[in-house]
Parts: sequence; C-alpha cells; structure tokens
Amino acid sequence: MSEVYAVRRERVRERCAAGGGAAALVSRPANVRYLAGAAPLGAVLLVGQGEDVLLCGRPPSDQHGEGRPDEALRMRLLSEPGADPAVAAAGLAAGQGAESLAVEEHHLTVARHRAIGSVAPRLRLVDLGGAVEQLRFIKDEEEISCLRIAAEIADQALGELLESILVGRTERHLALELERRLVDHGADGPAFATSVGTGPNSGRSGHRPSDRRVEEGDFLSVCLGAAYRGYRCEIGRTFVIGTSPADWQIELYDLVFAAQRAGREALVPGAACRDVDRAARHVMDSAGYTDGLGPVTGHGVGLEIDEDPQLAPAAMGKLDACVPVTVEPGVHLPGKGGVRIDDTLVVRPEADGGPELLTITTKELLAL
Amino acid sequence: MSEVYAVRRERVRERCAAGGGAAALVSRPANVRYLAGAAPLGAVLLVGQGEDVLLCGRPPSDQHGEGRPDEALRMRLLSEPGADPAVAAAGLAAGQGAESLAVEEHHLTVARHRAIGSVAPRLRLVDLGGAVEQLRFIKDEEEISCLRIAAEIADQALGELLESILVGRTERHLALELERRLVDHGADGPAFATSVGTGPNSGRSGHRPSDRRVEEGDFLSVCLGAAYRGYRCEIGRTFVIGTSPADWQIELYDLVFAAQRAGREALVPGAACRDVDRAARHVMDSAGYTDGLGPVTGHGVGLEIDEDPQLAPAAMGKLDACVPVTVEPGVHLPGKGGVRIDDTLVVRPEADGGPELLTITTKELLAL
Repeated sequence: MSEVYAVRRERVRERCAAGGGAAALVSRPANVRYLAGAAPLGAVLLVGQGEDVLLCGRPPSDQHGEGRPDEALRMRLLSEPGADPAVAAAGLAAGQGAESLAVEEHHLTVARHRAIGSVAPRLRLVDLGGAVEQLRFIKDEEEISCLRIAAEIADQALGELLESILVGRTERHLALELERRLVDHGADGPAFATSVGTGPNSGRSGHRPSDRRVEEGDFLSVCLGAAYRGYRCEIGRTFVIGTSPADWQIELYDLVFAAQRAGREALVPGAACRDVDRAARHVMDSAGYTDGLGPVTGHGVGLEIDEDPQLAPAAMGKLDACVPVTVEPGVHLPGKGGVRIDDTLVVRPEADGGPELLTITTKELLAL
Repeated sequence: MSEVYAVRRERVRERCAAGGGAAALVSRPANVRYLAGAAPLGAVLLVGQGEDVLLCGRPPSDQHGEGRPDEALRMRLLSEPGADPAVAAAGLAAGQGAESLAVEEHHLTVARHRAIGSVAPRLRLVDLGGAVEQLRFIKDEEEISCLRIAAEIADQALGELLESILVGRTERHLALELERRLVDHGADGPAFATSVGTGPNSGRSGHRPSDRRVEEGDFLSVCLGAAYRGYRCEIGRTFVIGTSPADWQIELYDLVFAAQRAGREALVPGAACRDVDRAARHVMDSAGYTDGLGPVTGHGVGLEIDEDPQLAPAAMGKLDACVPVTVEPGVHLPGKGGVRIDDTLVVRPEADGGPELLTITTKELLAL
C-alpha cells in the first residue's frame, strides 16, 4: 500500500518540478490523506525536492477511521503548542534549497499564506491549484473497493431500518438510529449528516431531521452514507408509509425514478457532465417540473462526500472510467412533500457492463 | 433580540469607520452568526457604510439549531449556482461607495481573497483581524443563559447514562447513546464529537470511541457537550467500573481532582490566563506528573467549542467577568488509562459568588 502513496506523491513532484527547484505544500485534509495515507488534525505534507515530510501538531492516532501514515514517509511532530505545521514546512523547504513552494491557495487562508511568506522570504510562493484534486478524480480499484464496502454498510443500515416500526418515531430518532447502525456495521462514522424527512419535509435536499413524527400516508425520504477507510458513499430512498400510496405519490415517484434512471444510463466514459445532468433534468422538464430539481443532479464522491465532477447544467468536463458519482434527482412540493432517489455508481465502459451500482437497495416504491 | 445584533454590527462598523469609507466583510461562520443571528451554509455578512446585508448561496433554513437571521437585516440570495457570496459582497461594497473592505484574513482563503480583489479592483482590502472574535470574548446574559441550558442538557444526558448497565458495552455505543440523549433533551446536536474512553483509553484527551468494551475495574472517562441555539458547552467526568476503585485509581483521581479545583478557584476577573493554567499544572507537577498535562488546561466556549481565551503556559491576556471557560486537566498513563475532569464555568466577581459552575454533575469518584 505504501507504494501507492509514493507514486501519488511522485506525480505531484513531477507537476511542480517542471520549473525546477520547486516543492509543494499540501494542506487540504483530503489531499494530505490521499498522498500520505492519513491526515492527523492540522497536518500538512511537504512534497520536497528530495524527501517528503508529514508535519503534525499532534501525534497521529492509530484509531479506527483516521488512517495510518505511510511508513515510508518521514514524520515531524511540532512540539511548540500552536505552531502552524504549514509555516514549519515552508522553513523546511527553504532549508532543502527549494526556490519556490506551490501552496493550495484554495485552502490556505490569507493569514497563513502571509506567515509562510515571512518565515521564508526567499521562497517564491506559487499556486498548486487543484493539482491533487485532479489526481483524485479517477479512483484506483483499492479506492473503489473502499467505496463498495461503504455502500454495503449503508445498504445494511437502511435495510434494517425498514424492518422496524416507523410510525410515531421522529425524524431525529430515525437519523440517529441509522447512524448507530452504520457504526455497528463497521463504518468509521456517517459520511455526512444523515437526512430523514417525513410528510411535508420529504424530498427536501439536505433536510435536517426535525421532531416531526412519521404518520400514516407520509412520504418518508432518507439520505445517508458511510465512511469506510476515509471513503464516503451516499444513498437516498423515498418510501410511503401505510397500506398503499396515493395517486399523486405514485405519479411523483415514477417521475423521479425515470429521471434518476435517465441520469444513471447517461453515465458512460467520455460523457459530458452537463449531458448527464440534462438527461435527468429533461425527464422532469417534460413533465412540467421545470424548477423541481436543485442546481445539481449529482456529484463525485471519494475522500470527500462532495468532490469533482459536478453534474450540473453549466458543468465543464467529462466523465471517465473509474469515476464514482452520485445520481440524485428529487422534487419537493411545498407543504406536500416529495421524492428523492440517490445512488452512488462508478462509471465503467459498456464492455465492462456499464455503470457499476454500489448502493443496491431496491428502488421500487415500498409501502411500509 | 434583533436590537442586540444591530448593536453588535454597530461596534464592528465603528472599528472600520475610523479610517472613513470602510466596510467589513465577515465570513467566519461563528462571527456571521454572532452578528446576523444565523449563519446559513456559506453565508457572509457585509457590514456596510449604510446598510448591512447577509448574502447567502441558499435560503436560510428555519430548522431547529440553525438560528433565524435578524429580521432587521437585508438578505440577498444568490441565484447563480456556485457563486461566492464573498465576491458578491465585495461588489456590493464597491457599489455602496466603500473605499476599503476589511476582510477576515484568518478565515478567507488566498483564492477567495484574490477573487474579491479582481471583482472590485478599486476597493482596498485590509485585515479585519480578530475584531469580531474580540467582541465575542465577553458574553451577555442571553448568551450565558444559552450556555446554561446547554450544560443542563449535557448533565441530564450523562446522568441517564450512569443509571444504565455499562459493563460489556463498547465506547462507540456509549458515545452514540449519549448523543441521542443530548438530542432528546433538546440540544441542536452534540457540541463536538463525544469521547468515551475505557480502560487503557480512559483519560486520553480527544479519544475517538473505539470498539473496546467496558470491563470490571476499568476507568471510564466521558467527555461530551450540547449545542443549544448555537452555544456549546463541555463536561468531562471519569468513573470507575465495579465495586471499588484500586488504590492507584483513587490516588490518580484525587490528584486530577485537586488540579481541576485549583484551576477553578483561580478563575477570577482580571486573572492572567497563564496563572489559571499554572494553578492546575502546579498541583500535577508537585506530584511528579510533570508531562502529565496536555498543552492547555482549558479554553473559552461560546458559538464555537474552542475559542479564546486559552488557558496555557504561554497564553497572553486576562480573564474577565462573563467569560465562560472550561477547566479540564487530565492525565493518561500509557497502557493503564487515566483521569480527566472537565467543567464549563463562567468567570464572575467574588462579590457575585465567584465562578459560576454550569456543569453540575458530581465530581466524586463514582464506582458504577
């Protein structure tokens, strides 16, 4: 496993070294973890001309979920409380003879950038931009297998909830129970705050669970995900509570299901991200729900729950094989509720059977 | 309540206006909430020469815990997906005729700072520094009453746990149960990730709950807190599992208790923060646990769980009346475990009875 990290760091080094005499300072936690195997709180990674160093303010914890630092990596623990590892890294780079240091300007604050500049005034600070995020875009099979396990865990937690009595329980309780079950099944923790919406709250994107109780006749929409070895997946389903759904519920569900299927089917290597979005959006538009969808119909997942690509009308870029994304259209009718269906899939060539569905809980409209 | 926010914003305006023609852009979420009553995800606050504006990427949610924006405040919702409210705010400030814009350089990234500079090239960008954090340092009675309720909730959740059977349950389960109870008792949510440590994990600061099960003879240390209307408290206790503690456990507990009491008793308006730290640390040192304590023995709490002041050997600054802080010394013996005792208190003058203890769960060594 250690070799994987060294190869990744080598690719960062190649990008920087084009100009000569360059080092890179990686501070965004998910990027640090991608290159170093772990990201202890506040740690930064110096990708130097010679040696790479992980600088931490506190010792890395070997506890479940945090990851273990690559053993081939030198680690430096800062003893002075409050010392900024990024500033120490810049001093180290200057000491190694680097002429320039590429920093993540989209992550580093102005104040830290200034502190780095003053500790190493001869070091030219340049922008590393999204170089590490670009490396993270396409996942290797090791990463995909972590996502696959994360998805299995989420499926299990959701499946168990469906077997329990739901009427009369609050959104908060259901969300907490789901999170407990995720951990029971081996997740590091929830991938994001679990969302449970009932009745008029159902179908709302990012709904925070409230004290509303599940009632007969409600739509119940649930969105959850597990983190496993740092990798995060997402699943969303909508159910109906009681003996049988009302006509408007069936119609709305079928519509969102059709939109979600259209989005899933558009996931092919080389497809433009905006075309995947359009495929799902077109189904909704045709049925008159022009403003029904939110700004995105899906997004990449990996070490962060929301990463590139975005599936949105103005998105640039194309999909590629081995890129995991969510497809999650939804519609919410104010005062009435709505439907959201969300899967995590991996883009695969047609020759390999097309997109690989990681979250396999049924998408039939279940009456619970 | 609305007036409180207007008064706070007025104080920010006064700081900026010293130079004339100045506006301020507040981006740090806790600072936005302090000045605007709510901080919807990604929102920023423009404190202008004339009108103040809250700029959001999505509509504020009226759901429990997020806070409601001050009704006296103009709100602007950005319709373009992905638009940065900070950039829009800078454009607005320039349009209002501001000559300079004070930004939070300790929060804003280099990339956002640059984007602001390019949208409003005539606007001189200066540093607002920790001006809002300084205003937040001393709490008003409304804020303290939120902290008091948060502490009550944490006390209740902890009290209920103590009545249940503990042996055989994992750290993870106990932590999840505590978090469920916090929510049951009306918390917005946990103030931070609940820490439960048993046996060799007990007494470790910030320990992440593992799958270790509680055993007879263990120390069990628990650290939790509730968020209530955005305000966060903290309580930590250590218990012994079984019929009676071992001698080494009693000795270690008494020592940490004495250190914690010394810290609490040093909380008087005007005391130097480092002296409070020293009071607690001195007790440990005298008993030979020179390196037993972590880098801080306590910290401020409020809209964030870890804010100014820091109670640490090199801390600058003094306490004041109405400043809430934690006092939380602990010691951990590798392989054996340890003790941590943590309270949230409000500094009060002696004439008012001295420090007000918010977390009132007993600090006797309970054998459970």
